[in-house]
Amino acid sequence: MKEDRILLSHGSGGKLSFNLIKKLFLSNFTNPYLKRLDDGAILNIEGLKLAYTTDSYTVDPLFFKGGNIGELAVYGTVNDLAMCGATPLYLSCSFIIEEGFSLRLLEKIVLSMREASVVARIDIVTGDTKVVNRGAADKIFINTSGVGMVNEGVNISGSNAKVGDLVMINGPIGSHEIAVLSEREGLKFETDIKSDTAPLSSLVADMLKVNKDIHVLRDPTRGGLSTTLNEIALTSKVDIEINEDDIPIQEEVRAACEILGYDPLYLANEGKLVAFIPWEIAPDMLKKMKENEYGKKSKIIGRVVKKSEGKVYLNTTIGGKRIVDMLTGEQLPRIC
Amino acid sequence: MKEDRILLSHGSGGKLSFNLIKKLFLSNFTNPYLKRLDDGAILNIEGLKLAYTTDSYTVDPLFFKGGNIGELAVYGTVNDLAMCGATPLYLSCSFIIEEGFSLRLLEKIVLSMREASVVARIDIVTGDTKVVNRGAADKIFINTSGVGMVNEGVNISGSNAKVGDLVMINGPIGSHEIAVLSEREGLKFETDIKSDTAPLSSLVADMLKVNKDIHVLRDPTRGGLSTTLNEIALTSKVDIEINEDDIPIQEEVRAACEILGYDPLYLANEGKLVAFIPWEIAPDMLKKMKENEYGKKSKIIGRVVKKSEGKVYLNTTIGGKRIVDMLTGEQLPRIC
Repeated sequence: MKEDRILLSHGSGGKLSFNLIKKLFLSNFTNPYLKRLDDGAILNIEGLKLAYTTDSYTVDPLFFKGGNIGELAVYGTVNDLAMCGATPLYLSCSFIIEEGFSLRLLEKIVLSMREASVVARIDIVTGDTKVVNRGAADKIFINTSGVGMVNEGVNISGSNAKVGDLVMINGPIGSHEIAVLSEREGLKFETDIKSDTAPLSSLVADMLKVNKDIHVLRDPTRGGLSTTLNEIALTSKVDIEINEDDIPIQEEVRAACEILGYDPLYLANEGKLVAFIPWEIAPDMLKKMKENEYGKKSKIIGRVVKKSEGKVYLNTTIGGKRIVDMLTGEQLPRIC
Repeated sequence: MKEDRILLSHGSGGKLSFNLIKKLFLSNFTNPYLKRLDDGAILNIEGLKLAYTTDSYTVDPLFFKGGNIGELAVYGTVNDLAMCGATPLYLSCSFIIEEGFSLRLLEKIVLSMREASVVARIDIVTGDTKVVNRGAADKIFINTSGVGMVNEGVNISGSNAKVGDLVMINGPIGSHEIAVLSEREGLKFETDIKSDTAPLSSLVADMLKVNKDIHVLRDPTRGGLSTTLNEIALTSKVDIEINEDDIPIQEEVRAACEILGYDPLYLANEGKLVAFIPWEIAPDMLKKMKENEYGKKSKIIGRVVKKSEGKVYLNTTIGGKRIVDMLTGEQLPRIC
């Protein structure tokens, strides 16, 4: 009998990841916090509402156009806190380093984390360093966890999408994954495509100033926009329709996708969020988002059409309509 | 010019680790929380005192006598919270898994984490799973971070050791490292030596019931008892004297050390704590510790003798006195 083994797709953020989490983790670590399946848990400690989240960063290569693993490890976790509607406060940081790794590179990564933590206004308050034998890890892995304070009156969750909500995104998709891929595979594109790595906490703070009634916030990282929307559709039990024409994509990223045969809807992003907003407040929200440096190219890309089992439909440029599924298997080599 | 590189000793918990943390991390991530150099940070959020800590677990082999990586990942972080005088509340859990890892083993590890979290009364509330290419990681690494509530009136820190304090330990040292080593190297000892892996939060809770005026709590994991005492001596700026005759060691561990040429003072433990207690309350404390299942073999092993730069002295069995330093380099192959 063949033994079941972990595949790359179990970590790609797509369907296999979702099933692994549901079957193995949710069934064993039973508690109401984890069950929400959000980017972070919302804790209530003595009346204080805190967001709590963790992420390990294994990106290869460590440095790429527009970012590096250190910056990613800070902003990625900051963003997960922001997606809970929380003000990021504190980070933990744990390194797993391969014996023989360059101290100079480690310092460069640490300096980049420092800079990112200043930009995102978060303190790295506790840490850990493990060194493993040569060959037992690929250069360096970084885990960060984060704690933030959930703003009063905020109740954001992947399960809160409501019929009538408009779906918004803060800018063009796919540049992170293409930037990392082209660095790793040595692909040359005429124009340089940079990762969109960015901290989204100031953007979320601005959005909450407009109105606290944001239903869903989620950053479409691994698995891309399609997978994120599918997760939301499934947990909120609604159908979502998005319009291909409205989805912002940088021309160079679109060209790269055509050459490489990738669907940009499944490409990872590191500075993007999707927001589900009651339609009445969407115009004010869009205006405010565009004023923030990380939201200049914000757009409304779709809406929640009805209660259902949870499907995502794409109205295509050529006038068709098709179901968009979660990422199944591996579209690409693992990059983040 | 030869480039400086990361050595195994940078992660062994000894002198090189201490220097790396001080030079690279403390100088860059400047904040009062990190500066304390304790097992966790003590946060003050809106008047609520929380302990916050992180640790990555890379133990090889994954399963050994008396424990496994999953149990370790729960108890290790629970213990770091307990060492802050906190009641452990919530854990995050992040897996880095090598492609091809057995799903059955993953399930076994997850079940063990579940069991450990029930024993330690802590909820695993948020998580992350990354899968890396075959060969890019050694089977599985687990990071856990933890949040706990610091009990009122408690002020425990590695920098709080005072002249006159008695040094206590909750049982015999060294069994964890010998258990892991013998599993990995296939060594056979006449008697089975089991890892001491255990959650120490109930023991700490019991101790705090006797008196909240505990000055220092620290679990002597990587680097062993000697390194831990040296860290405390350095940050508290005191000299510590311990008595070789009083340090509890299981006979089998002592024998294994003699065969292998190891000094038990540098062996890692996973269910031990050292406590620095004002001498007046030490007898009551010892009595209470012995009543707890993880403190039955508690002993007073030394005392803080004077203010100084921070040295640790060992009064040897044969009547001598020698300085005991931090672990320098690698006594042993890395095991945790």
